Amino acid sequence: MARSISKGEATREAILEAGLSLAREVGLSALTIGELAERVGMSKSGLFAHFGAKEELQLGVLRAAQQRFDDEVARQAFREPRGLARMRALFGRWLSWTAAQPQGGCVILSAAGEFDDRPGVIRDHLAQQQRGWLQGLARLVGQAIEAGELPADTDEAQFAFELFGLILSSHHHVRLLSDVGFLQAAHAGLERLIGNPPRRPG
Amino acid sequence: MARSISKGEATREAILEAGLSLAREVGLSALTIGELAERVGMSKSGLFAHFGAKEELQLGVLRAAQQRFDDEVARQAFREPRGLARMRALFGRWLSWTAAQPQGGCVILSAAGEFDDRPGVIRDHLAQQQRGWLQGLARLVGQAIEAGELPADTDEAQFAFELFGLILSSHHHVRLLSDVGFLQAAHAGLERLIGNPPRRPG
Repeated sequence: MARSISKGEATREAILEAGLSLAREVGLSALTIGELAERVGMSKSGLFAHFGAKEELQLGVLRAAQQRFDDEVARQAFREPRGLARMRALFGRWLSWTAAQPQGGCVILSAAGEFDDRPGVIRDHLAQQQRGWLQGLARLVGQAIEAGELPADTDEAQFAFELFGLILSSHHHVRLLSDVGFLQAAHAGLERLIGNPPRRPG
Repeated sequence: MARSISKGEATREAILEAGLSLAREVGLSALTIGELAERVGMSKSGLFAHFGAKEELQLGVLRAAQQRFDDEVARQAFREPRGLARMRALFGRWLSWTAAQPQGGCVILSAAGEFDDRPGVIRDHLAQQQRGWLQGLARLVGQAIEAGELPADTDEAQFAFELFGLILSSHHHVRLLSDVGFLQAAHAGLERLIGNPPRRPG
């Protein structure tokens, strides 16, 4: 039975959709209930009924961004068998996703830059999200080891760190220099990483 | 004869110093002549005498940030002989520099995130700066090839792209997760890059 979405949930979804878009334009830290109320044509008190505070709204937007990433990147890649096939699928979809983001780019990466020096619930959430990504990437490496596709002493955490660097370098260069050649450079970097992976100290 | 600094130049330096600090707090895009005048205790018209428009002030701040990077990172590293010694010195100083930045982190990297979707003189300047860095890094790789320390068919541009990714991944993780272990991960990544560099298609 399909889950029916209540009117309240639908409104919440629409608010988060507008919130994502506004966060891309002005940055997550500038996303306030007042600004967003104006954008969606609701009263501030109406918005407060859904999000009691600015931080709650900002967290909601971050979770919505993560949800989209999960739907459009991770879930699709996880249809591939464990091991390098899944890793390459995730990497490729992730790259395409960062390049295809509307103006303002990846909300989560931008927010990490904005909040890395602002202690509080948003930074804590971003840090937790980041740790989760690194762990998830390390698990993909571990599965490739189990599948016999990478050496047994591959350093999973180091592999995840370097893979993330290729994504960041691609995101940075594609967006700033408007040159999609940097997507190819990231793919080449992943193949080099796979062909000669970092090893755990013996 | 030491170059004497006029009062006008000294004032300009002080304004840029305060501008750098304010840009770290609020982002370069929010750096306006009015905000900065308040910060330095000058009149808006006084500031206008030094920087005729917001963009001119923002460009001045970006150039001041680059100047510091050149003084504290590049110039020091260039005392090392050409080749891997210079590359390792630059990389190490660059990493330390990103980790040691005051709250707000690297002004240039932050600005790249803010302006990558805002066409105009600031984005053009950032893109040019970025191309210059990639070319400079590729030159360091070329010098290591000439010194016989890297294979002759090393792909200089790909090497530069991946090296930049290690810096970005380290900057991102150290600042967000407050874990300097990621500096070590970047160094390990550079050694892997040197030990098994990307090759030009044959």
